[in-house]
Amino acid sequence: MSFLDHIERCNNADLTQFEPWFIGGQRAGFLHREFAPLVASRSRLFARCDGSWRLDPALDTPEQRSQAVRRFLVELRDEGHFGGLWRDEDYPVSWRFTDPPLMTMERAAVPWFGVRAFGPHMTGYVRRKDGLHIWVPRRSHTKPTFPGQLDNTVAGGQPAGVGLRENLIKECAEEASIPRMLASQARAVSFISYLNQSGPQLKPDVMVCFDLEMPEDFTPRANDGEVESFELWPVRRVFETVRDSNAFKYNCNLVLIDFFVRHGLFAADDPQFVAIVSGLRMMYTPL
Amino acid sequence: MSFLDHIERCNNADLTQFEPWFIGGQRAGFLHREFAPLVASRSRLFARCDGSWRLDPALDTPEQRSQAVRRFLVELRDEGHFGGLWRDEDYPVSWRFTDPPLMTMERAAVPWFGVRAFGPHMTGYVRRKDGLHIWVPRRSHTKPTFPGQLDNTVAGGQPAGVGLRENLIKECAEEASIPRMLASQARAVSFISYLNQSGPQLKPDVMVCFDLEMPEDFTPRANDGEVESFELWPVRRVFETVRDSNAFKYNCNLVLIDFFVRHGLFAADDPQFVAIVSGLRMMYTPL
Repeated sequence: MSFLDHIERCNNADLTQFEPWFIGGQRAGFLHREFAPLVASRSRLFARCDGSWRLDPALDTPEQRSQAVRRFLVELRDEGHFGGLWRDEDYPVSWRFTDPPLMTMERAAVPWFGVRAFGPHMTGYVRRKDGLHIWVPRRSHTKPTFPGQLDNTVAGGQPAGVGLRENLIKECAEEASIPRMLASQARAVSFISYLNQSGPQLKPDVMVCFDLEMPEDFTPRANDGEVESFELWPVRRVFETVRDSNAFKYNCNLVLIDFFVRHGLFAADDPQFVAIVSGLRMMYTPL
Repeated sequence: MSFLDHIERCNNADLTQFEPWFIGGQRAGFLHREFAPLVASRSRLFARCDGSWRLDPALDTPEQRSQAVRRFLVELRDEGHFGGLWRDEDYPVSWRFTDPPLMTMERAAVPWFGVRAFGPHMTGYVRRKDGLHIWVPRRSHTKPTFPGQLDNTVAGGQPAGVGLRENLIKECAEEASIPRMLASQARAVSFISYLNQSGPQLKPDVMVCFDLEMPEDFTPRANDGEVESFELWPVRRVFETVRDSNAFKYNCNLVLIDFFVRHGLFAADDPQFVAIVSGLRMMYTPL
């Protein structure tokens, strides 16, 4: 294990297995070569064109696209396609989260369509006399994804229609009982991007990293059943756990590595310094 | 003016005007299409091969390469080629500064051969009750390059044979009279990379960013004539000066923008957030 292994693990996608799909002139995502024909044969939503796919141009507003695709996704769901992961939560379809979304899409379907998901990932830390400490949550053992793994202090996906900062403040309350006054002090300090593949699913995702310095006398508390427990760890223990294990959920390692870089835990003369810092932001630029 | 303008200004290179040159199988740099024929006609050092250039393979040690190239560069210098910029300072020729150098090359020649230069760039800051402040030096009006412009607190090029951190500590003493004990607390927290072109010269450079929190009662003092004066500015004044002007030396803006990002001065919902953060690390990966 090493820090670079986590970066490689997050960036395991083989893009040659995918074809981009477009809404008008804009790339909206990627379809796996084995999933695309199923979508095309089952719906009239997508047409093939020059090695890529186009969403039916007759759907010429975000609302029409969202509704038409949703009808198809509900069919798939009713046949059991998304397992237990359907959430009734709309994600924006957009390559840049500050652009108006081209449409919205049920969260569970997003990686099947290689749509970029966004999310705030916050590291809550405490400056104690004996050094920096990080609040480390363990995901509930009943969560459908990555049960029991370690996580970033507060993290969530980014639904449509709300800003990243506002979403983070909401997640802080729900996941860790952090009051708005404290959560508002979180600062966006970086982002992580990667291209992760899981079978036919592709995640070309962006996590915006926030730091929140928390007072010594505040203890986060699970509030919505998503987190089992919080523990305050010395930063060195977090550093070694990330370096030596897969105890943290795979993409949370990258947020922590970025924290370690920004807080000066790597040496400039470390032969991996540049590779680590640049590996945290693998980007596939929009057309 | 905007933050992205500084990033674009640093990344103004048109790589189609250049051809790579190799030492054995490793890319060492780039030669401008108009400079390469002059080099080839004047020396037997380079031979053309498949749209690129190869350094004479008979030069099979770093020492032989360094000496042979130096003889040629001294000839050019004696004809006035490098203006007053010849420094008698050897830079390593290497795409990654922790790799053993393929050879060394006089600093003044490095951008003519499109060799990547490295350097530590440190932001010295003070946490005062009234907020973060940054020590801002003005470059001496007699410096041959960028006279009178604002600079990073301490910055320097990276010569061969010394580590980045050790070099920074030396520069801290020379440029700002910062004692070793204090300078040793500087932390490597990021790097900046860009591809800058100035006529036939190419700088595919990497600056390793250091932060140093300095005590309120310490005042840096110019020591070697390279800096005219230091002033302690509120971070907001530095932020606005970078955003609205070209008062800082062109590449120093990027180090400060990175500082602003890491210290939370940008909003996550700023439409330029991702473009700014990713623009700070334009990379051309080695083969």
